[in-house]
Amino acid sequence: MEWHIIGIAASFLTTFGFVPQIVKMHRAKSAKDVSLVTLLQFGAGNILWALYGVYLKNLIIMTANIITFITIIVAIAFYYHYNREHGLLDNF
Amino acid sequence: MEWHIIGIAASFLTTFGFVPQIVKMHRAKSAKDVSLVTLLQFGAGNILWALYGVYLKNLIIMTANIITFITIIVAIAFYYHYNREHGLLDNF
Repeated sequence: MEWHIIGIAASFLTTFGFVPQIVKMHRAKSAKDVSLVTLLQFGAGNILWALYGVYLKNLIIMTANIITFITIIVAIAFYYHYNREHGLLDNF
Repeated sequence: MEWHIIGIAASFLTTFGFVPQIVKMHRAKSAKDVSLVTLLQFGAGNILWALYGVYLKNLIIMTANIITFITIIVAIAFYYHYNREHGLLDNF
């Protein structure tokens, strides 16, 4: 079994894991019940995973987490944009 | 620098990344705008990451992804429970 294929498939799924969440907020023009803390926690976690990937010299772990971090930034921007618009900012 | 501390901190943040989302849905008794596809994608990704962790013989990657998978199951259950209650099931 080519184990790296498993790693690459895993990367794709979780790297782009927040893309449907971004699409859903954008379509609904709403971010009610989406957790900001979850987004912040993943953002911070992605940075540390990327560093750990450097230590492991594992390019998959590094790039996957950097890309996810970028999607998290977009998701946080949408969280603020849509919740501010609807007066729903609870910062949680 | 003790690199494993970075790995452990990264694990904690992303392993429990969906816990605030679960708490938020439970408090609001609502799961509007939470993306089911994001949850399913992470669930599938976590299984593959855990397998890749077996190949890497990396206990952190294995356990982190198994625990996250369990939290994803809870989040999906809440997604269905609260959206069904409010007639908001869009399966996206």
